[in-house]
Amino acid sequence: MIQKLQQKSKKAVVLLSGGLDSSTALYWAQSQGYDCRGLSIDYGQRHRRELLSAKALARKANIEINQIRLDLSWLKVSSLANQKKKLPNLPLSKIGQGPIPSTYVPGRNTVFLSLGLSLADAIGAKAIVIGANALDYSGYPDCRPNYLKAFERVAWLGSKSGVSGTKIKILSPLLNLDKSQIVRLALKLKVPLELTWSCYAGKKFPCGQCDSCKLRAKGFALANATDPALRVYA
Amino acid sequence: MIQKLQQKSKKAVVLLSGGLDSSTALYWAQSQGYDCRGLSIDYGQRHRRELLSAKALARKANIEINQIRLDLSWLKVSSLANQKKKLPNLPLSKIGQGPIPSTYVPGRNTVFLSLGLSLADAIGAKAIVIGANALDYSGYPDCRPNYLKAFERVAWLGSKSGVSGTKIKILSPLLNLDKSQIVRLALKLKVPLELTWSCYAGKKFPCGQCDSCKLRAKGFALANATDPALRVYA
Repeated sequence: MIQKLQQKSKKAVVLLSGGLDSSTALYWAQSQGYDCRGLSIDYGQRHRRELLSAKALARKANIEINQIRLDLSWLKVSSLANQKKKLPNLPLSKIGQGPIPSTYVPGRNTVFLSLGLSLADAIGAKAIVIGANALDYSGYPDCRPNYLKAFERVAWLGSKSGVSGTKIKILSPLLNLDKSQIVRLALKLKVPLELTWSCYAGKKFPCGQCDSCKLRAKGFALANATDPALRVYA
Repeated sequence: MIQKLQQKSKKAVVLLSGGLDSSTALYWAQSQGYDCRGLSIDYGQRHRRELLSAKALARKANIEINQIRLDLSWLKVSSLANQKKKLPNLPLSKIGQGPIPSTYVPGRNTVFLSLGLSLADAIGAKAIVIGANALDYSGYPDCRPNYLKAFERVAWLGSKSGVSGTKIKILSPLLNLDKSQIVRLALKLKVPLELTWSCYAGKKFPCGQCDSCKLRAKGFALANATDPALRVYA
């Protein structure tokens, strides 16, 4: 009981976009005894729809969430933040294998982690949880293990927590899992997958053609599971 | 001539708050041949007045500036972003010597640098310039040399530029200067100091009592110079 209470005081900020990965990361953090605070960011992504999922997930997981708006005009260089650009439509086998795709949002994870760090340092959280994945992913530089390690050093050296002797950890529980392992973990943790949203296209229904839809479908297929979100949008 | 043109293509993002340090950093970067883009952030600082100075400085220096708004409710823990809190009023000799003061804004420089990184990666800038100073300062953790070095690694590993072979540099030309050396450098570079704003208090006139006013006054006194901003507010 005392241990339980102590665990409850272990706070974490979870970067919660509302997708499969970040939702699984949230439920993982809760399973590890973290008292979680969600953080999601409206940066003008074409799939702003995901923010509703993030809210619904936070409600379901019974956590507080901060949703903030970032109006960064220069992000229009990314096809993920510019409706006028075309999303890539690569065959599954090519995703993450070529150059950085047009959906790359300049500095996104650094901005997200820095906002997470600010929140963590303000509320005394000991960890920032991110659903980054370096196996079945689009090949973004800011999802790789050495990048996350480097940010952890920034968090340590640049925060009041760090100076006071608490190194804020960057936890990325999905980093080395492939998509089917993520789906299996999500099912094990009873993540309400029907609430999650992965599609980049930002329409009413998942497009099935963007990197994110394809990787998600691959994950469910290889895990021999049905994506419950498909029932919702069927 | 060709060299001049080549230099002009060397872009830098300058974190421009509108104070003495960041303005001097801007003029320093221009003196080094950088084609500068300003970035300043309204995070609810009580001295939001500084943003007008940043704009005026950008106009004077003939650079483009992005000013963005960050609405982060949790920053109210800082006396710099909460009018209801009292600003510290330390004797000059104690500034930066004790624990981190209440004006510390959680993760501020990490958030600023990450936004600078995002902008730099989007426009192809090769450097981010920050007026951080680790001598005559308030003792914030995110102004120290090893912190800035750590962020440089994040910028390298987490950006498209980095992957493409361009390491975005974090330039902090004032890092090891004391305040009088900064004033001397500003005078040499002809920074329009009458446009700068340093006071934390956010009133019509500089208060003369906050850390920032005291450090600025010390700089001018030791440089045997008169602060031209005082004429403006006299």
